[in-house]
Amino acid sequence: MEGKGPYALDFDEILPDDVLSQKTPEKTERLMLELAIEKTMQQKQTKIEDLQFFIAGDLMNQIISATFAARTYAAPYLGVYGACSTFAEALGLGAVLLQGDFAEQVLIGTASHYQSAERQFRYPIELNIQHIASNHHTVTGAGAAILGFSDRGPRVTHATFGSVVDMGIKDALDMGSAMAPAAFATLTQHLKDTNRGLEDYDMILTGDLGKQGRKMLRVLLTNTEYSGLERLQDGGSQIYGDGQKTGAGGSGAACIAVMTLGYGLNMLKSSKAQRILIVATGALQSPTSVLQGDSIPCIAHAIALEA
Amino acid sequence: MEGKGPYALDFDEILPDDVLSQKTPEKTERLMLELAIEKTMQQKQTKIEDLQFFIAGDLMNQIISATFAARTYAAPYLGVYGACSTFAEALGLGAVLLQGDFAEQVLIGTASHYQSAERQFRYPIELNIQHIASNHHTVTGAGAAILGFSDRGPRVTHATFGSVVDMGIKDALDMGSAMAPAAFATLTQHLKDTNRGLEDYDMILTGDLGKQGRKMLRVLLTNTEYSGLERLQDGGSQIYGDGQKTGAGGSGAACIAVMTLGYGLNMLKSSKAQRILIVATGALQSPTSVLQGDSIPCIAHAIALEA
Repeated sequence: MEGKGPYALDFDEILPDDVLSQKTPEKTERLMLELAIEKTMQQKQTKIEDLQFFIAGDLMNQIISATFAARTYAAPYLGVYGACSTFAEALGLGAVLLQGDFAEQVLIGTASHYQSAERQFRYPIELNIQHIASNHHTVTGAGAAILGFSDRGPRVTHATFGSVVDMGIKDALDMGSAMAPAAFATLTQHLKDTNRGLEDYDMILTGDLGKQGRKMLRVLLTNTEYSGLERLQDGGSQIYGDGQKTGAGGSGAACIAVMTLGYGLNMLKSSKAQRILIVATGALQSPTSVLQGDSIPCIAHAIALEA
Repeated sequence: MEGKGPYALDFDEILPDDVLSQKTPEKTERLMLELAIEKTMQQKQTKIEDLQFFIAGDLMNQIISATFAARTYAAPYLGVYGACSTFAEALGLGAVLLQGDFAEQVLIGTASHYQSAERQFRYPIELNIQHIASNHHTVTGAGAAILGFSDRGPRVTHATFGSVVDMGIKDALDMGSAMAPAAFATLTQHLKDTNRGLEDYDMILTGDLGKQGRKMLRVLLTNTEYSGLERLQDGGSQIYGDGQKTGAGGSGAACIAVMTLGYGLNMLKSSKAQRILIVATGALQSPTSVLQGDSIPCIAHAIALEA
């Protein structure tokens, strides 16, 4: 589905199917992450021994996709979890390790799979439960990147790590509404810290707010000093085409990863953009916390990238 | 049980029970972490606004204990997962953020609870399943610390982050055997990197190897250049007394946290030790990966502390 959507040409590879001859979707998800890493290492002509860190996470309980990929690519491993914001947490931490002189090359990665997420967080797909309009469709995909020092290529210039925001929303089938305030908090904190406006970025790519959350973020920003709302784009809302029946849009750890590493980097490389801001959001509930009546704690991390 | 064990006097607080008037063990676990944070902030007379980061994780799916604590203490939040090694990952990353000049004060924390872990990873305790001797007993506890720059108090001097090691062991009821090779790999890497021997530390405190894993680590070290094996201690093996019927010993994210922040720091503060090394191990399987026939990927992170 992602390979038939509007951003298909931005992705480095479209896999032939979502099974890859694996017995379970969890094993497919893991393999996809390994394939993404393999491709990245080939592109950069890097060996695992050259990497000082591998930072990764995913949606699976105990982040097994990341861990098993870390078994295959055995660099010092830092497992992270930020739900759909995981990629930005890894990207920001990777940049920290480079700038602080703790590493010369850092591998980051994440993956998600519609089937593994659906059966862990919602229902087994065999039940064929009808989705409501505010529901997100977990992106089946994987993204990996090697961060390092180089004279060319896009650079990470800023990372604003967000605090948890929870406005009391309990509906796990409307994660966009829950996450929009976290995106708002981190975005405005970033702009305040850097003394920038939305216009300082050619694109602000939020992660997985979806059609509902995207609207809410715009409403929240309307009552502020910030203009330039037309620069806001949302990876979740856009990754699927209108005819693809995916509710509010895409989500999952892979969503902002493939939209950033595909669409975002291509914008920078082709000079369609000089400076973009990624605002990756995550809904940090678990099925257990939802069943126990808790609301949905959310987070967002902002990463600025320059050509 | 932890408060009746041999290290009871090392802990800052023994809670009256393992329920704390909460409806579920997951909520108790979360509350324990919040209580540990509250106490740490009081001891250090620090406010949440003074903290640039909160790094935390736990054993629960989607690390909800850490996340909900991060909602209560809303500093920029980095969720991490390394099973029982989580504390060391947070401690090492916190030190990185300080040394790299990204923060002045970093809060770290973790928690685990016997009941929440037992029902998530094994069986509901109501089933009263008989435990085998190699099984670990998840520590009910929480630990939190504020890292910063100070003239006094123990210092983090080195962090060696480990790679994933998987020797093919599939028995999730014998995590000690699975984790010992990871502890060995990180410990020897640390000694090699720092050009030190075991004798350079007054104590090497491994995390949660338990009685079985502790034996295996000694066997692995016997065939090396390293002497001073009597300096090895293991938090998991030691946290409970011999009469407490806890199989191979303690485990859980809280185990190495409370043994380090209680026992370890007291050793340093009382000058019984000048330099200690924490080697926190983690078994990174999930119930799903075990059911799907995978072996147990393991990790260990080593952190050196000096008085």
